[in-house]
Amino acid sequence: MKFGGTSMAGIERIRHVAERVKREADSGNEVLVVVSAMAGETDRLVQLCREAAPLHDPKEYDVVVASGEQVTSGLLAMTLQAAGLNARSFMGWQLVKASGVHGNARVETIESALLDEALSGGTVAVIPGFQGVSTDGRLATLGRGGSDTSAVAIAAGVKADRCDIYTDVDGVYTTDPRIVPRARKLDAITFEEMLELAGVGAKVLQTRSVGLAMRENLPLRVLSAFEDKPGTRVVAELSGADMERNQIAGIAADRNEARITLTGVPDKPGTVAQVVNPLAEAGIAFDMIVHAATPNSGASDLTFTVPRASLAQALAVIEQRKGEIGYDGLITDDAVAKVSIVGVGIRSNPQLAAKMFDVLAERRINLLAVSTSEIKVSALIAEAELELAVRVLHTAFGLDAEQAA
Amino acid sequence: MKFGGTSMAGIERIRHVAERVKREADSGNEVLVVVSAMAGETDRLVQLCREAAPLHDPKEYDVVVASGEQVTSGLLAMTLQAAGLNARSFMGWQLVKASGVHGNARVETIESALLDEALSGGTVAVIPGFQGVSTDGRLATLGRGGSDTSAVAIAAGVKADRCDIYTDVDGVYTTDPRIVPRARKLDAITFEEMLELAGVGAKVLQTRSVGLAMRENLPLRVLSAFEDKPGTRVVAELSGADMERNQIAGIAADRNEARITLTGVPDKPGTVAQVVNPLAEAGIAFDMIVHAATPNSGASDLTFTVPRASLAQALAVIEQRKGEIGYDGLITDDAVAKVSIVGVGIRSNPQLAAKMFDVLAERRINLLAVSTSEIKVSALIAEAELELAVRVLHTAFGLDAEQAA
Repeated sequence: MKFGGTSMAGIERIRHVAERVKREADSGNEVLVVVSAMAGETDRLVQLCREAAPLHDPKEYDVVVASGEQVTSGLLAMTLQAAGLNARSFMGWQLVKASGVHGNARVETIESALLDEALSGGTVAVIPGFQGVSTDGRLATLGRGGSDTSAVAIAAGVKADRCDIYTDVDGVYTTDPRIVPRARKLDAITFEEMLELAGVGAKVLQTRSVGLAMRENLPLRVLSAFEDKPGTRVVAELSGADMERNQIAGIAADRNEARITLTGVPDKPGTVAQVVNPLAEAGIAFDMIVHAATPNSGASDLTFTVPRASLAQALAVIEQRKGEIGYDGLITDDAVAKVSIVGVGIRSNPQLAAKMFDVLAERRINLLAVSTSEIKVSALIAEAELELAVRVLHTAFGLDAEQAA
Repeated sequence: MKFGGTSMAGIERIRHVAERVKREADSGNEVLVVVSAMAGETDRLVQLCREAAPLHDPKEYDVVVASGEQVTSGLLAMTLQAAGLNARSFMGWQLVKASGVHGNARVETIESALLDEALSGGTVAVIPGFQGVSTDGRLATLGRGGSDTSAVAIAAGVKADRCDIYTDVDGVYTTDPRIVPRARKLDAITFEEMLELAGVGAKVLQTRSVGLAMRENLPLRVLSAFEDKPGTRVVAELSGADMERNQIAGIAADRNEARITLTGVPDKPGTVAQVVNPLAEAGIAFDMIVHAATPNSGASDLTFTVPRASLAQALAVIEQRKGEIGYDGLITDDAVAKVSIVGVGIRSNPQLAAKMFDVLAERRINLLAVSTSEIKVSALIAEAELELAVRVLHTAFGLDAEQAA
């Protein structure tokens, strides 16, 4: 069971979490609990680090920010004891070996023996999320949202049957309910679909945690920490009743896009690489590359998207190489957005992509670029048309709930 | 160098501490820094534990409250780096092996190899005070004020030349300046004197830390964290110019006293033990025992003091054993206080005790009980007369400064 910061914000809420845990333990399950810091606490600690030194040592940052989850793990353990359970906290440095960059470390191994001993003795283990110990013996944190990854890694480490992520939403929805009030909570979604939805803006789970659960084939559930509802199962493959689910899991909307077009670039092999390699070296993500040649002219236009926040940096990188690449003009547009349909059904049914384009065309929504993957079709459109596009696609693919969520 | 909570309360103050540390390091010294949590933070964490569970597991309490010093140690390390020093934090669990009761553990050993390596490499080591790791591998705290003890233990562990305790007062005074504005800061005081002054209410240093420094013969200095003043040296023996110091180091005042008198107790061997043993078993400190027999009556009165907060509990313990002890009446008085003269001179000069009684008698201050040790003479008096007693003794023993402190 993993509880996020909103569920741990204050003793009353921690008591509520303890009741949830007790119910799970009382029903005969062996339970491990991974906790986040109280909501707002990590931000407070990060702010202290920034004030202390704008460019601070990530090792010392880790020492400071790891304290938030330490506090909540102790508090939850004593609250569970007060509720009559055997419970104890473990520290990240006792259990989670991490590697890589401080402040954004990766989980390497879990010292599961300690946990197995606790579990088999009937003790509920409470573990601070987001942290472990690095190979040089120092505290290491896993990057923001890392508690989800901690929970999945620890669950996999003890070969848990399931990892339940309790959060402030009650599951994964077919789209953003702020755009489509009739968005529907999904009973089940595959890891791949979840990754594609997360990648285009649905931030229910940290992407890394979903990838890890997929590799470990560990079923997840996303549940409300505040209401007693079944939530959404995240699984390797849909089966049984879940197979009846719509072929499209959801519609994703992403405003974090900017478009760059280079006009008059030489129409020869290697042009695309000449543009995108320097971007990759500069750590700038790019997407939706369209290379369209004007027939028999020898010249072409190259269009691609970058995250909006990286636009200025991307332009600087390209202008620096103008001579090398050879282009006439540089056109940018940051009033664009990406709408995607995501679903395992796309793999076997190319008609779904065609249907998407039809539906958008009917509403005269212009496609600036298109990209597809096995289970996702994305279209770049004008940002002003994003909400309309999401709504019409949501309806067209039969995702509307009978009542507003 | 040990810095208390007031000196660590906020980034501005931590920056000031960093300057202090840098000055020490720049002057060619190898420096270890032990830090407290930000002022108020430990209280906040203790309060969270109380709210979570009134009777909480001290092991979980330790997990929660140890986080305060972890935060300040990371913040100070990054601030020192920003000031151009090589610096890094170590965690209590890497360095300090503790034993005994969680929440009030004792330092057993210091893993000095890690620290020696840092120091010899020119790195300033920053260490959270108040904590270590217990023999069962769990976080353990040393009890309130334990950062002083951490600092002394770590200083002794690396065979430091000196341990400087930076605090919100600028040294040890001859008495409480709120009672005697002309109280004088002492240049030097012995460990024994410091222990007696702490034991009767002067709370500049945690008593345990002074006892440890005495056993390890580690010179201390008590200094202001905010002003550049020489502070007070705490040493094994006065020597050189310090020998010229007054034979009395200071006057201690303690209002935390209550008197219990049992009248008509049998005047036979074992009576005192019959009363005080049950108190000791109940963990109640007692002091200033006076057993005065009425000649040839076979009966006697037994008077002693207990901490005011323990009075009700002490009475309950005694009344439970009324039959066993055999006494007529039970008189209590919690409007009493203890005034003491403290100084290594008392050992060699019995005239000092006599002078104390004379001075109090001149002012018609009645002595309810008297107790003496090698370097201390205490008198129990009415609380209403305490401030007068402290003032007249301070003057009589030549302790008044020329100007108000």
